[in-house]
Amino acid sequence: MPAVGAHVWAIPEGYIPGESVSTDRALVSHEAACILNAGDKDADITITIFFADREPIRSYRLTVGARRTRHLRFNDLSDPERIPRDTSYASLIESTQPIVVQHTRLDSRDPSIALLSTVAFACA
Amino acid sequence: MPAVGAHVWAIPEGYIPGESVSTDRALVSHEAACILNAGDKDADITITIFFADREPIRSYRLTVGARRTRHLRFNDLSDPERIPRDTSYASLIESTQPIVVQHTRLDSRDPSIALLSTVAFACA
Amino acid sequence: MPAVGAHVWAIPEGYIPGESVSTDRALVSHEAACILNAGDKDADITITIFFADREPIRSYRLTVGARRTRHLRFNDLSDPERIPRDTSYASLIESTQPIVVQHTRLDSRDPSIALLSTVAFACA
Amino acid sequence: MPAVGAHVWAIPEGYIPGESVSTDRALVSHEAACILNAGDKDADITITIFFADREPIRSYRLTVGARRTRHLRFNDLSDPERIPRDTSYASLIESTQPIVVQHTRLDSRDPSIALLSTVAFACA
Repeated sequence: MPAVGAHVWAIPEGYIPGESVSTDRALVSHEAACILNAGDKDADITITIFFADREPIRSYRLTVGARRTRHLRFNDLSDPERIPRDTSYASLIESTQPIVVQHTRLDSRDPSIALLSTVAFACA
Repeated sequence: MPAVGAHVWAIPEGYIPGESVSTDRALVSHEAACILNAGDKDADITITIFFADREPIRSYRLTVGARRTRHLRFNDLSDPERIPRDTSYASLIESTQPIVVQHTRLDSRDPSIALLSTVAFACA
Repeated sequence: MPAVGAHVWAIPEGYIPGESVSTDRALVSHEAACILNAGDKDADITITIFFADREPIRSYRLTVGARRTRHLRFNDLSDPERIPRDTSYASLIESTQPIVVQHTRLDSRDPSIALLSTVAFACA
Repeated sequence: MPAVGAHVWAIPEGYIPGESVSTDRALVSHEAACILNAGDKDADITITIFFADREPIRSYRLTVGARRTRHLRFNDLSDPERIPRDTSYASLIESTQPIVVQHTRLDSRDPSIALLSTVAFACA
């Protein structure tokens, strides 16, 4: 399978609701970057998180294996630090291999769930 | 009508909820790839499904006729195998003719429905 | 203001739910193509509607004036014919001037509303 | 961090619901342009708002600092004038530096919330 996609992706919207109606992991409010590495080499990925009023947090690191997808929850990131809840942020995702990134949020603050999703912006 | 679109499309987000509040086909939780073949030749399409922790499933095959749209539900795919429920996946869609692909999910696990949609990523 | 955008846009997803919980026009289930003509010339627009199992319907015609937006509801199209409800379709939007198109659906079949939106695919 | 993105962005869909079930700022119906300026220079931004039946409103101005994100609510814009509620509009966002823009709406007219989001269209 040839590698497809881009090396740098941006997601300007980011917000992890601090509350959820459910404690079921599938239904807890979460924000995700779904990453597809269709190629035959592992992709080493670095994520930078931007805020309204402070310097960015660098650098979350992860690997998405060859021919694998990873649906990364920003909620789960903890190194170098946890992303604050109920706070607007944005993210920049840089990869050593071409990848494709889609942004999804499940918001379950409300008695019923709401969803949003968009393919992220391919920067380079 | 000239053919429009691209030959290779990626949808990094994929997840078929295992539960639904409804058994009405229109309201059952589903994940769809809406495919438009605006051109004058039939498009032979191959879909590869990627996972977090196993090799991809190749190759689902379908045809979208000339000047037709098909709103394919991933739920309905069964050959070579059914896509597991409640499992994160991604998809790569390859076509012999230019097509346009949009990803939509209707999630009816909840008492009320939620929707997401995005044009897929045009790889090539 | 310089004209921005593209001349041909595709929206593979289309579905007008036949039911709504509300008769308030703002909350009736609807499918819309939001069109921006930022330039200084009127845009003459032709829409083709594609189906799964019949030839396309050509050609809905409308004009979006210079420096205007129009949030066209597919529900409202009637010439050459009304778009059937509860039926999957796709659309191709062709314009004499550069425009930008975003697809939105409000689904109010359910006791609560659901929304989806995506920028359409710029074909040419 | 290199600057990423584009200088001109369009969002054809715009609509600020006049009602909300909540007065909590996080849950009030709102329409947002999430802007990421990943580069090392401040971005001076001008927004033009287009309508169906009147000339555009020019020019809302704001700055997004270097290495910052701003999740701008159209609800909050007041100079040169407030954007009318329950009215269809579109927006064009022009920046002196490359930025990335994502459009999000939270609609809480209903007893439960609905969300939509899409990366805006990069014009230039």
